[in-house]
Amino acid sequence: MNKYIAEMIGTFWLVFGGCGSAIFAAAFPELGIGFAGVALAFGLTVLTGAYALGHISGGHFNPAVSIGLWAGGRFEAKELVPYIVSQIIGATFAAWVLYLIFSGQSGFAGTGGFASNGFGDLSPGKYSLMSALIIEAVLTAMFLIVILGSTDKRAPAGFAPIAIGLALTLIHLISIPVTNTSVNPARSTGVAFFAETAALSQLWLFWAAPIAGALIGAVLYKIIAKE
Amino acid sequence: MNKYIAEMIGTFWLVFGGCGSAIFAAAFPELGIGFAGVALAFGLTVLTGAYALGHISGGHFNPAVSIGLWAGGRFEAKELVPYIVSQIIGATFAAWVLYLIFSGQSGFAGTGGFASNGFGDLSPGKYSLMSALIIEAVLTAMFLIVILGSTDKRAPAGFAPIAIGLALTLIHLISIPVTNTSVNPARSTGVAFFAETAALSQLWLFWAAPIAGALIGAVLYKIIAKE
Amino acid sequence: MNKYIAEMIGTFWLVFGGCGSAIFAAAFPELGIGFAGVALAFGLTVLTGAYALGHISGGHFNPAVSIGLWAGGRFEAKELVPYIVSQIIGATFAAWVLYLIFSGQSGFAGTGGFASNGFGDLSPGKYSLMSALIIEAVLTAMFLIVILGSTDKRAPAGFAPIAIGLALTLIHLISIPVTNTSVNPARSTGVAFFAETAALSQLWLFWAAPIAGALIGAVLYKIIAKE
Amino acid sequence: MNKYIAEMIGTFWLVFGGCGSAIFAAAFPELGIGFAGVALAFGLTVLTGAYALGHISGGHFNPAVSIGLWAGGRFEAKELVPYIVSQIIGATFAAWVLYLIFSGQSGFAGTGGFASNGFGDLSPGKYSLMSALIIEAVLTAMFLIVILGSTDKRAPAGFAPIAIGLALTLIHLISIPVTNTSVNPARSTGVAFFAETAALSQLWLFWAAPIAGALIGAVLYKIIAKE
Repeated sequence: MNKYIAEMIGTFWLVFGGCGSAIFAAAFPELGIGFAGVALAFGLTVLTGAYALGHISGGHFNPAVSIGLWAGGRFEAKELVPYIVSQIIGATFAAWVLYLIFSGQSGFAGTGGFASNGFGDLSPGKYSLMSALIIEAVLTAMFLIVILGSTDKRAPAGFAPIAIGLALTLIHLISIPVTNTSVNPARSTGVAFFAETAALSQLWLFWAAPIAGALIGAVLYKIIAKE
Repeated sequence: MNKYIAEMIGTFWLVFGGCGSAIFAAAFPELGIGFAGVALAFGLTVLTGAYALGHISGGHFNPAVSIGLWAGGRFEAKELVPYIVSQIIGATFAAWVLYLIFSGQSGFAGTGGFASNGFGDLSPGKYSLMSALIIEAVLTAMFLIVILGSTDKRAPAGFAPIAIGLALTLIHLISIPVTNTSVNPARSTGVAFFAETAALSQLWLFWAAPIAGALIGAVLYKIIAKE
Repeated sequence: MNKYIAEMIGTFWLVFGGCGSAIFAAAFPELGIGFAGVALAFGLTVLTGAYALGHISGGHFNPAVSIGLWAGGRFEAKELVPYIVSQIIGATFAAWVLYLIFSGQSGFAGTGGFASNGFGDLSPGKYSLMSALIIEAVLTAMFLIVILGSTDKRAPAGFAPIAIGLALTLIHLISIPVTNTSVNPARSTGVAFFAETAALSQLWLFWAAPIAGALIGAVLYKIIAKE
Repeated sequence: MNKYIAEMIGTFWLVFGGCGSAIFAAAFPELGIGFAGVALAFGLTVLTGAYALGHISGGHFNPAVSIGLWAGGRFEAKELVPYIVSQIIGATFAAWVLYLIFSGQSGFAGTGGFASNGFGDLSPGKYSLMSALIIEAVLTAMFLIVILGSTDKRAPAGFAPIAIGLALTLIHLISIPVTNTSVNPARSTGVAFFAETAALSQLWLFWAAPIAGALIGAVLYKIIAKE
């Protein structure tokens, strides 16, 4: 049970920190942290969450990661459903707390996109569905390669949360303009419930592409990691 | 005695570095470091302070952290008062040195907010008292989970100052627009003495919310950390 | 064979992440990540790639690095050609995937410079051929010193990917305005194929200067490293 | 002899990277890296230089650091002169190479301040001599505490270059507006030779204040570090 609560807390942290920084701080007049600040925030949720909770739950905080780890032979199939349910609960709870805080701003005028993911008209830079599919799949594949590689017995011990967290920062530095960056179906789901846009209608892509990418990344790593 | 001086120096560093970067550099014409730069500065005070002084005092530099560590069973009750007093002295001395330097600027026209914390009219983004309470409590709870988790015997040794310092950076990336970010009553107290705003009248919240959050975080971690 | 695929994937990641962040996000209206964000992205491709794949291929991802490591006595001559070919394939494949995604942007009007390297009229800050030669050679020499030094048996184990990755970030923080920063002939080659400018006609410099610099750096390190 | 060349190269790197990023990239139209980017660059020169060369020379790259380490009982008096001479040579050579590159920019109109340090009219934010004295002494004292503490036998091994490098980043995040940040007499000296301002006439302060601060920091650390 402890590991499910740990996954809930870790995914809460990922959404509260990553999406929270986007909602509160990205475009703050003149002093805003911009996309680079949001990218750093997302990465640091995972870096800090993995050092804090990794020894309890493994520190997935992301359904695509759990599925990729299973495909890579590092995670048991029977744990997939409880992990993914815990992640969705944590992400949705985080989005709700963000809503509570955000709606307390003087002059609050609705949630807008609420840091949700999208393509076409809902892409920050108006990128097509095909562009979104490709970039989400490619980035999640590379994310899994970093996760599987940096936690490989042959990699230096203890550094994996740095590599994995900063990989998520890198992923956001590349792709916020394209899809607002998901690579994490739970993160996409949590905030979509509170967005005023049609984010829910595009949610399928942010389950399909990250999971497909995670499977590709896991298989690729298994091939090249053979000794 | 050494550990009390170490806590004084560490909290001096936290306020001098974090609040100093905000006061001198955040909004410097065109080239200013913005909220993201201030967030990085706060985090690096703790990352560097913990590597420098952690082996002497444990590297709390924050009354809410000392109280949370006590609640988590990692710190003795009898040390609470001298630690917290040392932290307040260090923070206040830092604010005074910042004032000395700041008042030497050509055209100096008063300290203004002086990087103090606030809600309502004193919130950078005009967030309500309730928003401030929630975010300070949530973030301090997560801060304690990161501290207790990354210093757990099962976590990789030596990395805790990176995780804890960068957690403080993350916390600032999220919440500067809401409360100017406290999660640290000593930091709030030190600069409030020098602010020209009504910061002192709101100081109670930046003791109450971080301490409440620290207790919640410590209890949560104790529950999930059981082996 | 595994190590060649690892070099292909790692160099793919370097170009996809570094050049991708430049193409999609550097100048995004108001919220763009700027040169500092691109610098961070390039460094993180190597930091994460080296933790993920270093135990398989050594994590070069750069022909100048492979040549410098050979000159420094750390890499076998017979591996040079397959490594460099793998790196060029990975870099070019990354540029092609970036093109696919970028061309899916609504209102796409061509690739422009496509994050290619250049001097004179193709230098972001209009720096001369001589300035470009000097800075690329100096920075690659220092890059090799960091690589050879941080992987020296006497340096602390496990930290080299942090030092090397952040050295590449530093290199970009210095030199994007001068040459758009190469220090990596494969990276320069991959995107030059897709640029609409005369980048291909200047490509020779981004092979010659980094390789010359790498040889200088390797020789310098060998001299000072003698015990 | 090797260690003197290592100090030369390391101080070259500090000035070439830190001051180079300021000269070429800080204010680049729209996309410039700003003070935060320059702060990161300075810190990364030391982080990377210390991992690369620390096992050869100890990685001082700064006369105030050498003097502080001597005062802290970690460095022999007879090495002070050759170390400091090497550092000044490396810094000056870096400034000269920066000049070569910078003067190759189309429309080059002189070096201006050339990233030199100053107070009063030469302070970026027009801070007084007294403000400059205080901040340079305080920051160098804290820098020495971080250096002595993170390399203490009781601190976790291998992490010191991260703590020390990022301490220098933090120092720049705070104080670029005040003095353009020195805490390093060699760095101040190297670029002052090439500045078109009266930087040389103010150079005395950037020897006096950092050295005084280093001595204070070393004594403070010796007091609190006693077991």
